[in-house]
Amino acid sequence: MNPRDRFESMSKTNPGNFFEDFAVGQVIDHATPRTVTQGDRAVYGALYPTRFAIPSSASFAASVGLKPHPVEDLIGFHIAFGKTVPDISLNAVANLGYAECRFVRPVIPGDTLRTTSTVIGLKQNSNGKSGVVYVRSVATNQRGEVAIEWARWVMVHKRDQSVPAPDTVIPELAPFVDPADLVIPEGLDFTDYDFEAAGEPHRFGDYGIGERIDHVDGVTLTDPEHMMATRLWQNTAKVHFNTQARPDGRRLVYGGHVISLARALSFNGLANAQLVAAINAGAHTAPAFAEDTIYAWSEVLDKADTAAPGVGALRLRLVATRDRDESMTLRGEDGKYAPGVLLDLDVWALIPH
Amino acid sequence: MNPRDRFESMSKTNPGNFFEDFAVGQVIDHATPRTVTQGDRAVYGALYPTRFAIPSSASFAASVGLKPHPVEDLIGFHIAFGKTVPDISLNAVANLGYAECRFVRPVIPGDTLRTTSTVIGLKQNSNGKSGVVYVRSVATNQRGEVAIEWARWVMVHKRDQSVPAPDTVIPELAPFVDPADLVIPEGLDFTDYDFEAAGEPHRFGDYGIGERIDHVDGVTLTDPEHMMATRLWQNTAKVHFNTQARPDGRRLVYGGHVISLARALSFNGLANAQLVAAINAGAHTAPAFAEDTIYAWSEVLDKADTAAPGVGALRLRLVATRDRDESMTLRGEDGKYAPGVLLDLDVWALIPH
Amino acid sequence: MNPRDRFESMSKTNPGNFFEDFAVGQVIDHATPRTVTQGDRAVYGALYPTRFAIPSSASFAASVGLKPHPVEDLIGFHIAFGKTVPDISLNAVANLGYAECRFVRPVIPGDTLRTTSTVIGLKQNSNGKSGVVYVRSVATNQRGEVAIEWARWVMVHKRDQSVPAPDTVIPELAPFVDPADLVIPEGLDFTDYDFEAAGEPHRFGDYGIGERIDHVDGVTLTDPEHMMATRLWQNTAKVHFNTQARPDGRRLVYGGHVISLARALSFNGLANAQLVAAINAGAHTAPAFAEDTIYAWSEVLDKADTAAPGVGALRLRLVATRDRDESMTLRGEDGKYAPGVLLDLDVWALIPH
Repeated sequence: MNPRDRFESMSKTNPGNFFEDFAVGQVIDHATPRTVTQGDRAVYGALYPTRFAIPSSASFAASVGLKPHPVEDLIGFHIAFGKTVPDISLNAVANLGYAECRFVRPVIPGDTLRTTSTVIGLKQNSNGKSGVVYVRSVATNQRGEVAIEWARWVMVHKRDQSVPAPDTVIPELAPFVDPADLVIPEGLDFTDYDFEAAGEPHRFGDYGIGERIDHVDGVTLTDPEHMMATRLWQNTAKVHFNTQARPDGRRLVYGGHVISLARALSFNGLANAQLVAAINAGAHTAPAFAEDTIYAWSEVLDKADTAAPGVGALRLRLVATRDRDESMTLRGEDGKYAPGVLLDLDVWALIPH
Repeated sequence: MNPRDRFESMSKTNPGNFFEDFAVGQVIDHATPRTVTQGDRAVYGALYPTRFAIPSSASFAASVGLKPHPVEDLIGFHIAFGKTVPDISLNAVANLGYAECRFVRPVIPGDTLRTTSTVIGLKQNSNGKSGVVYVRSVATNQRGEVAIEWARWVMVHKRDQSVPAPDTVIPELAPFVDPADLVIPEGLDFTDYDFEAAGEPHRFGDYGIGERIDHVDGVTLTDPEHMMATRLWQNTAKVHFNTQARPDGRRLVYGGHVISLARALSFNGLANAQLVAAINAGAHTAPAFAEDTIYAWSEVLDKADTAAPGVGALRLRLVATRDRDESMTLRGEDGKYAPGVLLDLDVWALIPH
Repeated sequence: MNPRDRFESMSKTNPGNFFEDFAVGQVIDHATPRTVTQGDRAVYGALYPTRFAIPSSASFAASVGLKPHPVEDLIGFHIAFGKTVPDISLNAVANLGYAECRFVRPVIPGDTLRTTSTVIGLKQNSNGKSGVVYVRSVATNQRGEVAIEWARWVMVHKRDQSVPAPDTVIPELAPFVDPADLVIPEGLDFTDYDFEAAGEPHRFGDYGIGERIDHVDGVTLTDPEHMMATRLWQNTAKVHFNTQARPDGRRLVYGGHVISLARALSFNGLANAQLVAAINAGAHTAPAFAEDTIYAWSEVLDKADTAAPGVGALRLRLVATRDRDESMTLRGEDGKYAPGVLLDLDVWALIPH
């Protein structure tokens, strides 16, 4: 093989973007739109112990005004998010946070999702080796309607440290989505909600701010399962699939896998928190690996009403832990996350009155 | 966290029913109806080596009068059965038996299954710590038509041993479904059955009562596969998923996983036993774990005709074993199940003349 | 159990065909036609890191003239191929080669595939213990239209070495499909191809004959994943599923699993090589097992134009390796495949101008 071939071969594969490749205002149309199918619903149900009645049952969904039958909200989120990985975070050091994520329109089988991101902020680190990139991403369906939108910031390597730092722009991001800005799926009506079919009697009024719910059940992770989930979202980050991509020879579990597991486990105690309307914030506070046993607990952070008939909103902190922590401790006395905490997610969920 | 929060948190999750929570005549509408999709067909086909021509091929199914294309009978069974777990067997010591299970109507993608159970018997154990609960369960589709019905009895813990024992009621359950009571799917017609497409030439007349068939092939179990199957049915029993739920740190394989494996393996020798019409009885005689290699053999227990054109019925004992037993020994000289026998299932299957 | 029962039991299961069971001109209609569904698309996407825009997105497919939305070409190939295993290669010593495989018509969900093979050649080995069987196979859909066709030769055991050798017939098979014989899917039009949505800018003209592309990414194999894939295709070869079927207690990975992995990995550098039009030749040069990490590289062997608007064809050597070989060495100085080479596949792929 001659050097020229070598150069060509390298030029064909995607090296991802480095910090200096981003500019505020830049718009990136992410590749490989993805059509959602009934198959995604089944594979999701095989990988996560989810039982929320709306995505589980077309009849139940229709009875609350959702027809055709939407898939689990997080299916849309993972697909939409996965699209951004090759352009935004292939060279990321760390995913630093999410904000202002709204689920604008339920995703139904047949929908084709495409994601576009706009760079809304940049801040080079003082070490000159990396920087933080802020993007706002929008996933639209085949009719151009917005399905999901969110902001996210990641720390990305520089390719060439000699490139001068860009002007620092740090976007203003809300600490949480104002409940007045939640988008309620068109037609959603919880007036004749069937609590027996949904699996639990607890309604909006039964939850108090500050209340914590230990979701009790645990799932022990395996490598094939998290890889299958992560591939389903066309997430290409090498560390999830390749034991040679990390010095320790372990596959890092995609953070979204832990989100979906925790959300599914939260059915036990929050069965009526049927739909995720927003993700206010989220932190993956420790890595997860095969053989870890994951549990979850929730804390009610706030409550709000909505304009839709019978529909209230709970703001929930959803915490995933390695091993069960019956004390439900988020942070130690030093203010740091307690050992074992893997995920600290802040969401708005819709629940019947 | 104050004690009140703690109380609240415990009160939100489902503790399951204990023996004293059941009363004869009680009706339980199980939660989370579940819509069956083409995705379930694919995941089932990825998890079990099934090749029966009716569920495999829409064209074949249509050629024998089944249109639209039904899914594997056991998909319906596992979903319908899984619905009952959180209410009936979350605190079960043991699943003791099945009886009078009839497949009344093929399940097709788009059907939403819901299960209702009626308590038909109760018998407290002499130790006062547990008792046997007998239920009859009916799974119906979104039009209220019965899809599957069965009786089952389980041994369930008491929460409070001081609660007095209920009157003992033991239901009369048939040792097997009378062939006159088998429900043949509407339109089923085996007159022009394509034996070449189905994979084997053996028809009703080729099987003799007492004949045994060694299905030859084996499958070595893995944890991710049985967990994916069990989750697909929304079965919530902790021991299948959580290595911390059993002292030995192993995940117990859901008994239904062994049923589906054995049924799929039985294709080799019983390829024309296309549909399961009834489960007469069933016993999970030993637990299965990852790394066990499962084989199956069948014995023809009885034969019967049906009113449908070209359709006969074989009553089959379907036995799953750990490791292959070419001698096909069910019980030792002591009358106990031979070591290695995991499942002893008694079914009626429909087969062409 | 009496001897007669034993005999009967053995006679019911499929022993497969041995070398002396084949005759030139013999036609075999393979069993268990199989309907393709949206579920297959999802399971495939969970098992392989595929992102080609046509199978990923119904909208993208429609934009290049393909409507309804076809599944990945290799889904059709694996299903069609799997049908032949019980009749052709259950007693095979080795799969020796493929030739003249053409993808004639995209497979869409709802299609039912059936495969028929004709024996086109036979050559007994000089040792008298086995022989080579050449078959030409055709997979048709429920309307009898050809979907895929290919030739294949396998070495098969003799059951009875005393049976005289058949006349030797060795068919003439083309070393590669003449580009003039490639079948372009009806309606395919790459004139308005959206390179941004497809994920890479490289078009027909950007690839030079002799160019090599290191696809960079790797995937570490697991047993559950390759078993699920292989079962999905109803491939019944025991060595893939049963740790007791091989002296080393390992499950052999189905060669087609490596083909699909390599094809999916080739997205990175060949994202616009959207459709496989032909498999010219293929060799599984070494076995693969769980824990192997698979990489892929490609070499452009030839280029050709087609009659369809904007559609060119690249002839590609697609090589899968155990561990990454940045030197992309196919053969050592001794002319033998380099250690680590698992697959040497020669395909025609369609790519926009």
